[in-house]
Amino acid sequence: MRLNIAYLGTPFEGWQVQAGEREGGRTRTVQGTLEEALGRVYRRPVRIHAAGRTDSGVHARGQVAHFDLASGDPAIPADGLQSALNGRLPEAIRISGVHEVPDTFHARLSATSKTYRYRYRRGRFLPPHEGLVEALLPERVAVDSMKEAARLLVGRRDFAPFSVTGSEVRTTVRTLFTLEVEEEGPLLVVTAVGDGFLRGMVRRLAGTLREVGRGATRPADILSSPGPTAEARGLTLEEVAYGSPPPEQPRDDVAIE
Amino acid sequence: MRLNIAYLGTPFEGWQVQAGEREGGRTRTVQGTLEEALGRVYRRPVRIHAAGRTDSGVHARGQVAHFDLASGDPAIPADGLQSALNGRLPEAIRISGVHEVPDTFHARLSATSKTYRYRYRRGRFLPPHEGLVEALLPERVAVDSMKEAARLLVGRRDFAPFSVTGSEVRTTVRTLFTLEVEEEGPLLVVTAVGDGFLRGMVRRLAGTLREVGRGATRPADILSSPGPTAEARGLTLEEVAYGSPPPEQPRDDVAIE
Repeated sequence: MRLNIAYLGTPFEGWQVQAGEREGGRTRTVQGTLEEALGRVYRRPVRIHAAGRTDSGVHARGQVAHFDLASGDPAIPADGLQSALNGRLPEAIRISGVHEVPDTFHARLSATSKTYRYRYRRGRFLPPHEGLVEALLPERVAVDSMKEAARLLVGRRDFAPFSVTGSEVRTTVRTLFTLEVEEEGPLLVVTAVGDGFLRGMVRRLAGTLREVGRGATRPADILSSPGPTAEARGLTLEEVAYGSPPPEQPRDDVAIE
Repeated sequence: MRLNIAYLGTPFEGWQVQAGEREGGRTRTVQGTLEEALGRVYRRPVRIHAAGRTDSGVHARGQVAHFDLASGDPAIPADGLQSALNGRLPEAIRISGVHEVPDTFHARLSATSKTYRYRYRRGRFLPPHEGLVEALLPERVAVDSMKEAARLLVGRRDFAPFSVTGSEVRTTVRTLFTLEVEEEGPLLVVTAVGDGFLRGMVRRLAGTLREVGRGATRPADILSSPGPTAEARGLTLEEVAYGSPPPEQPRDDVAIE
């Protein structure tokens, strides 16, 4: 089964379940909270796998995860499972869609691209009514330089300099399909679309672009001058795309009509 | 001094300070939290007075409050006071503006109108990224009937049937300048502008309009058929207006440029 998931990262210690959490410790991750709800629905331990293991404080609007049904599991229709899970989850996590998928579907391995957005708010404070998924950008920045630098990062290359040290992966080569900086009213939004991202990579790209905006790094030097990692609170996993459309059309019914 | 204040109502038990809170009890109201921050800045107890004493769970984008300076108080410039307070407040409360006002200014008594918005989201769940200041409207509603009924409520009348029982006020006559129902994408937004509102009145107007939308009440019967009180989470105090502009132009610098 495929789940489309939206969450606020603020109350959780990231996606990935932590030591002790499954053994009766305090549930404090998004994965742990979801597995607990699934366990109550199916009355057995359920393990789920996400497309992107978001770090502590990072939000999602279009996270995708899958889990495998066992032979004795009750046949719960997609709509019923969505309601059952949303009824058991804290309001900071919502299941936005449930879809039956073939056994070959793997939320992470089948994904062909992911879209992240980093939201900077230019101003002196974050309005709580809308601002708790944004990061403050209190200084003036040169948006044109940021746009120029962003264009230079697009492509297939070794992004090791933009990863957080300590993460172990087979290869640090990734393809960045899109890296754009757009002004949306008081917001400055960095959109990154890629075939995969190293741990901390989007936040580091956002932090580096901010350095360019401040004039601390020239656009031409961006590849050789990775900047600081931007705060987790501004980052959202917006969407995960799969090469072929899922057999059932996603039904993220936000509006009834 | 006049403060413009934005807050998420969710973590607080309403605006008004509660018994025991000032005597060292746990701070749990917006007023109590603000008075504590002001007390730390001025190193004396400070009492503030709001334009609208919002109920538990109700949000604000444009709440206004005032407090009086004492003779020995340090002269803190408006910008400095804003920064000092925001540095001491939880992020769910932000001071969006600070203005010097004449002694005759009273946040509630000087107000000439208040604007509230009630946000209904039509759908099956509230997206956590944006939805925690909205209430769910899972059923189909007849928007035209809601608009028609809203128009019938505009005017000067006794709104006692739309107040929450138990609130004691001198008069229950209020003037509703505007009551509008607008569709904004998946949202159905009820905007109420009036010279004052009885306790629970906007939520009850919103709940009654929903009954009209469901077909349970005819628009023509709305005055005689007050409906249920809508959930607090969907309500936001958007703006408080004063007859004459404040002597200093409000500076709610959301954007720097």
